[in-house]
Amino acid sequence: MDINLGMSENCLAGMKVVDLSQFEAGPSCTEALAWMGAEVVKIENPKGGDPMRGAHDDVYHHYQFLQYNANKRSVTVNLKDPRGLELVKDMVRTADVVVENFAPNTIERLGLGPDELMKINSGLIYCRIKGFGVGSRFEHNLAFDMIAQACGGLMSITGDEDGPPCKPGASLGDSGTGMLLTVSILGAYIRKLRTGQGELLEVAMQDAILHYIRNAFTYMESSGKVAPRSGSRIVGGGCPPNGAYPCKGGGANDFVYIYTSFANPEHWVRLLRIMGREDLIGDTRYDNHGRTERRAEVDAIVSEWTRQQDKITAMEILGEAKIPAGAVMDTRELAEDKNFIERGIRQTIQHPQSGEYTMSGWPVRFGGSTLPVTRAPLLGEHNIDVLERWLNLDANAITALQGDNVIGENP
Amino acid sequence: MDINLGMSENCLAGMKVVDLSQFEAGPSCTEALAWMGAEVVKIENPKGGDPMRGAHDDVYHHYQFLQYNANKRSVTVNLKDPRGLELVKDMVRTADVVVENFAPNTIERLGLGPDELMKINSGLIYCRIKGFGVGSRFEHNLAFDMIAQACGGLMSITGDEDGPPCKPGASLGDSGTGMLLTVSILGAYIRKLRTGQGELLEVAMQDAILHYIRNAFTYMESSGKVAPRSGSRIVGGGCPPNGAYPCKGGGANDFVYIYTSFANPEHWVRLLRIMGREDLIGDTRYDNHGRTERRAEVDAIVSEWTRQQDKITAMEILGEAKIPAGAVMDTRELAEDKNFIERGIRQTIQHPQSGEYTMSGWPVRFGGSTLPVTRAPLLGEHNIDVLERWLNLDANAITALQGDNVIGENP
Repeated sequence: MDINLGMSENCLAGMKVVDLSQFEAGPSCTEALAWMGAEVVKIENPKGGDPMRGAHDDVYHHYQFLQYNANKRSVTVNLKDPRGLELVKDMVRTADVVVENFAPNTIERLGLGPDELMKINSGLIYCRIKGFGVGSRFEHNLAFDMIAQACGGLMSITGDEDGPPCKPGASLGDSGTGMLLTVSILGAYIRKLRTGQGELLEVAMQDAILHYIRNAFTYMESSGKVAPRSGSRIVGGGCPPNGAYPCKGGGANDFVYIYTSFANPEHWVRLLRIMGREDLIGDTRYDNHGRTERRAEVDAIVSEWTRQQDKITAMEILGEAKIPAGAVMDTRELAEDKNFIERGIRQTIQHPQSGEYTMSGWPVRFGGSTLPVTRAPLLGEHNIDVLERWLNLDANAITALQGDNVIGENP
Repeated sequence: MDINLGMSENCLAGMKVVDLSQFEAGPSCTEALAWMGAEVVKIENPKGGDPMRGAHDDVYHHYQFLQYNANKRSVTVNLKDPRGLELVKDMVRTADVVVENFAPNTIERLGLGPDELMKINSGLIYCRIKGFGVGSRFEHNLAFDMIAQACGGLMSITGDEDGPPCKPGASLGDSGTGMLLTVSILGAYIRKLRTGQGELLEVAMQDAILHYIRNAFTYMESSGKVAPRSGSRIVGGGCPPNGAYPCKGGGANDFVYIYTSFANPEHWVRLLRIMGREDLIGDTRYDNHGRTERRAEVDAIVSEWTRQQDKITAMEILGEAKIPAGAVMDTRELAEDKNFIERGIRQTIQHPQSGEYTMSGWPVRFGGSTLPVTRAPLLGEHNIDVLERWLNLDANAITALQGDNVIGENP
């Protein structure tokens, strides 16, 4: 299969975004806009830029920066200089969207809060991400992804049944919040195209987590019990088999997930056939209710079969038999699976500092193609390009601003 | 604070969605569209509808249905009747968006696949969610949320360091995928408003998980090591303190999360002051690098302090001192915290069958207000309303269709 990169990145052609965000929550949102064709200009501190860029030898954060800032432009502006602030305001006058996720009150102290900016551009969609919502007793507290995952209830339902709370490996407090904001921005933008109206959008990372754990609330509300941690099983444990069952090899991720849906009793019957346990077909002791009562026994029956298979073979056999199942894959197995590259889910970029780097792009396909990934910008890479096009400044004016340290040097 | 429900639900006024989806991944997407004002018509089987509605006495799935289908309309159509299929096609002719998440090949067998429907409406945005991507060797396999979380790498990085893989409590394979599709639909719709162009959008739940675990990939690529499970700590363990530390009470969720950011060394200094350990301020054995080497010792120092506090007090003290921290909250604590209701993050609906029910709404605030939640529809509740408005059918024609079992009865 050829790598098929489509032209659907022009969906948001014409949308202009002033991106004052940093780390992950804000950048994951503006990157999604950039992938669909918005022009996203990241305003960065000339001294180091987004903290996510990390120090010079910090490869981990360098790669994270690449992951969350593809397809954007970078302009370095000194926000401690009044002329720097004016430059940003001039950009905002022509923009559709501003996104910020500074610590509480930081942007107001800079004079770039919603009151100021929505006054100079009544059609502006001003977006902010904070840890806790306006009106929450914690609204002035600092937060990062993991704080939101703790306070939003997600850690209380993640981990082994008898173990301590765990943090899901996904950064749902950051990227999960970022996606909800992206949806909201596009909704507001569609109305703006119709009416010219701007909007103030605010999302708290704690509140965003509540959106993603709605099943845990329904579990509690229907059972009367606090939603517990359930290991690899569904919230509250559910009806077995459901969970990660051990496979041949015995490695940390040699497991296959098997789920027999409440909505389709055939899954269990099919599984019994695969396991050579036709003797249990139709046995009412093993209907949905019975299996829930006999969890240990059911899990033992299933494990006896899974232990004889390697996880991929198990997945193939079960998948073929139309039983929902999947191998627990680790990051290396996924990175080495060329199919993700063939399908454009992961794409390789060339970076002047780090050479070739393969990263995840936007996973939704448009017309059978994925949106092309362009490498994240160097710090200040688009100073000239953007200030010329957006503000009609000429080369001399830009050089003068650089001489006065209002904007940063070109890389 | 009064509950403040805004009027921003009109963002997507005029957008018409034919919703053929079920369970959670598709419905979470179309619900987001409905909250912002799209008219979402859920096409359901007259015999029971969306399997998520559950059986009559299945309160858990009843509540789940309410959670994922607010603000939508329900029309019951018998898709086994050719006239039922024609009705759906007539609706699609006037629609902007179709969403489906049936098992592989089901919609094609019904004759409602993208080839058919995009032919009768060239401006249609046809959306599909599957477990595995087109071109994946597993593309015909069944999948649910948990299968995607296993195959997408998320379970391999969730759980205790020495324990088995765990499933995050959030249904990221479903709602996480749904949000990525929502973003894409709105992007395509914005282009459609400009050009009239339709689009085929496809997302695989496995691929969507890769989007949410990008930090784990950067960990692996920078360290050379497969991203491991790290308990409550950040991917790969990070620099301590980071994690859920035990508090007074000793209950399952009596923990406070503390995170001292790599980007701000002051967090650690502030924490030392709070803990009365000023003796360690400036001690290079406890810089970022040193603390990573001395994890057990650092965790012991921090735990000694946290064990003397209850989790809320700890959060207050740490928050006041500008240290990123948060209590591990459980579902009951969140449900009982009236602040979420005051801020409109959770809203109470009246349901003819289940009475009063409080559920999570869309967490992003528009102009200081949250979007109002309207209860999920009864099965077939909008048969007359929608068929009259969308297809100009009169009452007699609708009654005749019901008599022929082409559409279902009214509730």
